[in-house]
This record gives sequence, structure tokens and C-alpha cells, in this order.
Amino acid sequence: MEKHTEISTLGEFGLIDKLLAGATKHNKSTLCGAGDDAAVLASGQKAMLLSTDLLLEGINFDLTYFPLKHLGYKAVVVACSDILAMNALPSAITVSVGVSSKFGVEQLEELYAGIHAACDEYSIDLVGGDTSASVNGLTLSMTAVGYAERKKIAYRNGAKPTDIICLTGDLGAAYMGLHLLEREKRALDGSPNPQPQFKGYEYLLRSQLKPELRTDIIKHLAEEEIVPTSMIDLSDGLASDVLQLCKASGCGAHIYLERIPIAREVHSFAEELNSDPVVAALNGGDDHELLFTVPVSMYEKVVKIGGIDVIGHITEREKGALLVTPDGSGIRLRSQGFPEGL
Amino acid sequence: MEKHTEISTLGEFGLIDKLLAGATKHNKSTLCGAGDDAAVLASGQKAMLLSTDLLLEGINFDLTYFPLKHLGYKAVVVACSDILAMNALPSAITVSVGVSSKFGVEQLEELYAGIHAACDEYSIDLVGGDTSASVNGLTLSMTAVGYAERKKIAYRNGAKPTDIICLTGDLGAAYMGLHLLEREKRALDGSPNPQPQFKGYEYLLRSQLKPELRTDIIKHLAEEEIVPTSMIDLSDGLASDVLQLCKASGCGAHIYLERIPIAREVHSFAEELNSDPVVAALNGGDDHELLFTVPVSMYEKVVKIGGIDVIGHITEREKGALLVTPDGSGIRLRSQGFPEGL
Repeated sequence: MEKHTEISTLGEFGLIDKLLAGATKHNKSTLCGAGDDAAVLASGQKAMLLSTDLLLEGINFDLTYFPLKHLGYKAVVVACSDILAMNALPSAITVSVGVSSKFGVEQLEELYAGIHAACDEYSIDLVGGDTSASVNGLTLSMTAVGYAERKKIAYRNGAKPTDIICLTGDLGAAYMGLHLLEREKRALDGSPNPQPQFKGYEYLLRSQLKPELRTDIIKHLAEEEIVPTSMIDLSDGLASDVLQLCKASGCGAHIYLERIPIAREVHSFAEELNSDPVVAALNGGDDHELLFTVPVSMYEKVVKIGGIDVIGHITEREKGALLVTPDGSGIRLRSQGFPEGL
Repeated sequence: MEKHTEISTLGEFGLIDKLLAGATKHNKSTLCGAGDDAAVLASGQKAMLLSTDLLLEGINFDLTYFPLKHLGYKAVVVACSDILAMNALPSAITVSVGVSSKFGVEQLEELYAGIHAACDEYSIDLVGGDTSASVNGLTLSMTAVGYAERKKIAYRNGAKPTDIICLTGDLGAAYMGLHLLEREKRALDGSPNPQPQFKGYEYLLRSQLKPELRTDIIKHLAEEEIVPTSMIDLSDGLASDVLQLCKASGCGAHIYLERIPIAREVHSFAEELNSDPVVAALNGGDDHELLFTVPVSMYEKVVKIGGIDVIGHITEREKGALLVTPDGSGIRLRSQGFPEGL
């Protein structure tokens, strides 16, 4: 290996742009390739949605505190969340597993019990995969498939100035849950009979260890005949995901700080850590909630669904993507972290 | 981790059967889930085929002698070969990459140059993927997609007694290429200016480092209006793959030893190693050729295509799966190795 440019020098999504620059489109059926939450492949009147995710031990999860059954469940949620982000429901998934020698059959069964539980919960068919030995840690790779009528697909690139920005659920809890688990791991390291202290923070743990798919929202949007002008799932953190949506749509955004939904437990734990709960909401990631835009005329219809907050609106590109504080000043949104989605 | 059953105790495909035992089918569109080369999902009159593969550094490849560009190319071939094995052509692929810190941008570009080259060669669209840092080695996960008319799909389970068994290409060369590379690696370990000796064995190297997809065969079969009664790709070795086909079809097979196509270079290198070229052909794997069955009445039509050998025929299940030697005695076929396909 001769020339060596650090991957970090390309910035968050620069690497992906660079690597995909050589891709040629060969098939008419490929309606949308890389660059959105999922690929879109024509399939008669409908389109097929395809998305893939990789989870690696030591990077994406730590088996010292992440139970295998929860990991299996979460793997399905992580992969299928990208299908939801196109305004569709997932119907099938493949899961490939690289297994290190420390694993026995019982451990794999635990993992698959979680995979099956999530598949049953959300009516998803496990249709295949691959298994391999691994000299390193546990490797999980999932590919999710869904179908949708072409005209109901919500891409990232359809947001228009004045559209309102809608968000499901609340933010920062999964990130704080991870911090809580890491703290207890450090505190109990070497203890012969570990008794982690999680009381009062069950919501944070659940958000990290057993996130849920917002299939309910996709169904409600269909019932109300709402097709979002754009949509993305919140895997990288609000700031990064809003920026991706703005970039794809060629627009700016105003997000109002006081409208960002943050759970009580996130505030409490942030106080304990002497940290800012807004940072967890903006940059924490791993939320698996949905962010979407609709024309302002649909405000009433969206609010009626329940559990959805309107946190801002789309602006002209020149205005930039800003976090607006209660005193009216605007702070430029910045993304953080290693590129995740391709 | 309390109870611990070694995965090897379940036998080659027992693990997969066990892990998938809990899977429930939820969607009518899932025509065929795990258990064949690819999943089959209904898509109007057509069906979508989906297959996924995992390649892990240290298990499936060794970067000390496997050039990254070739690895990218081969990753596409490995994944798409399963779509061909259903008698269909691949149209799209996703590639996820877990990247260790020793990698720079240039190395990733090399890898992707190979991926793009294979996609261009076979008219496949690269439609997405995921990237992650990796604390361990390079991880590659590919998911290939193809479409086919439902009635033209060749499953593994349609072989009938008296059907002839057809094979494309020749066997054992990729396996011998791997041995050649491993031998040179050992010989040159620590040498300041390594000059590997590959002369006369270029075919073995090419079979290992740059295998080709047999899309030509799928096109010829379509032109001749031949729909195989069953089909599989040769990734695990002839013995294992014939056994899988027999198991799925509920039948036996006679494979005639003298009809197994083995390249001259495989014979030469086997002689150098003092090993049996037939073992490489039966158990080596990694060939990515196609094995299929057709009614005996199609013998002429198949042979006319060229490059296809008829190596045996399907029998009643009770007769077992046998390798028939020139003196007429039958040796029971046995599979080897860790479960690969799910």
C-alpha cells in the first residue's frame, strides 16, 4: 500500500460520493440508486425498495452489555428503518452473520430469537442470508426489502421552501442509553457480582436496546393520504440528517430549538453528566425516528395523527440550515461522525 | 455465556436449519424464503430474486496476495452467481464495507474500481450499501437482485430421476490457484524483493483472482428455451453442491468420474503437490460454475450450446449420490467445510 490518504480527510459523506463516482446505470428498472435511504427498483406499477446495513462488534455494539436477543431485534429495526424512510413498509429481510469462535449454537439462537421476534412484530419475512466463520468479532449485515406504489415514495429530494418539518417521537434517548451502559460497564469492571444502577432510566435503556420501528406512522400517513414531500430516518442525529435532506432537496431549514422533543429522562441524565441534552438530540443519532416534510397546508392533518412534532420549516438554500434559539438567533447546523449510510 | 455447544457439532447445514426454524412467513409476496440460492419475491407477473453474501478478511480472503481491485470484482461475481443459479440475470447490487484503519482512500478506490469493473462487465447497477469503520479486518457484504418470469425460475428442488446433470466450465482451478498463492506467500515470507513463480499456472490464478459470471450460459439457455428442472452454482465444491441439489429434490445422482472436466493446469499443479486433482474438483469450491439438470430429451439442445459437459444423471433417492469410477464402482459423495450459503 503506497499512497495513503486518511479517510477522515474526505469529510462525512465525501468518501461515499467519491467511491460511487464510477458507477454507471445499466438497467431501466433502477429508478434510484445509491444516495437516498434505499434504492428504488421498478417492479411493474410498483417499485421495490432495497436497503442494507452493516453492524460490527466493537464499532456498532459492545457484547459486554448488549444482550444478543436485543441485538438481533435491533438489527432488524436498523435495516428496516430505511425502508420506512421512503414511506413504505418492509416485507422481507436477509441477515448475514460472521461468527467468531467464542460463539456457540446457544448464542446464535439467542441472536436469531431477537431477529425472529422483530420479524414477527412487524410482519417481515426472513428470506435468507449467509453465514461465515470470523477471525474477528461478530459481524451482522442486513438487507431489507419493501414495495410501494411509485407515486407514494418519499425521497429525500422533494422538500420545498415553506414546507413544515415534522418529527416522530423524541430524540437523544438512545444516545443517552448508550452512555448509561458505558458508565455502568466502567463502574462494574472487575466486580465479581455486578449490579448495574439503571433505576429511573429504563426509557433510555429501552431506546438503546430495543428501539421500535415506526410502522404506525407509515400506516397513519397512508390512511390520511399524506405523501411527504421528503423523508429520512434519524440514524445519524438530527443535525446530520436535516443537512442531508437539505442537500438532496437543494434548500435550507429553520429548526426551532424549543420545539425539539427531548424526554424527561434525557434531561435528568444529562444533568447528572453535566452535559447538554440538546447535543444528544442533535448529534447523538441511533434514534430511528422519522423526519419528513409536508406542505404547510397539511399542518392540521399531520398534527391530528398524534405523536408528531412540527419542529421547523424549509427555507431557501441561501438561508442555510439553522438551529433557531428562543432569542431568535440562528446557529448553523453541523454534522458529526463517520459516514454511516451510503 | 453459559451453555456452549460447538457450532461444528450441528454439521454443515444443520446450523442454518436450526436458526431458521423460528421463521414465520408473513407476506404473500414471499414465494420462496431461505433454502435456495436466492429468495424469490413476487413482483407482478415477474419475481424478484435476492441473495446475499459475506466476505471476511482472514477467512474468505488474504490481502497479502489478493489485490483489492480483484477482490472488488470477485465480490460482485460471488454475490451475483446465486442469481444466475436461479436461471436469471442480476440487475442490481448493494455492497457494504467495514473498513479497518490501515485502509486509506486509495485502497478503497482500488476496491471500488474492481466493483465498478464487474458491474460494467455484466450490466449490473450498484444501488447502495453501507460503510462502517472496523476494528478488525476488511468486511464485505453484498446483496444481489435479479428479476425473472416466475415460470422460468430454476429452483434446487425440481430434479427428477433420469434427468441429465450438466456442468459449465471446469473445476478445481480456483482452489488450486489459492494453494499456489498460499505456497508463494510462504516461500517469499520475509523476502525483501519477492518474485513469485506463477509461470504456466496463469489459468489457476485467474480462476481464483478473477472468476467470471456465466451470464453467457443463462442467455444461451433462454435462447434455446431451456428451463432447467433444477440448478445450483458451484460455490462449495461439486460434492457438496450435488448433495444439496439431491436433498432439495429428494433424489439421488450418479456422477461419472471420468466426465468431470478438470483443466490441464490443475493436473500439473496437483502432480507438483503430490495431491489428487479430483479432490480439488470435488471439494475445492469457489468455482462459480453452474450445475443444472434437464430432461434427457434435451441432451442434444444442451450440448449444442457448447462449453457444457454432461457429467451424470439423477437417480431415485434410494440409490444415493454416488461418484461412479471407470470400473463401475460407486463411492458415496461427501460434503466438507463450514456452512456457507443460507
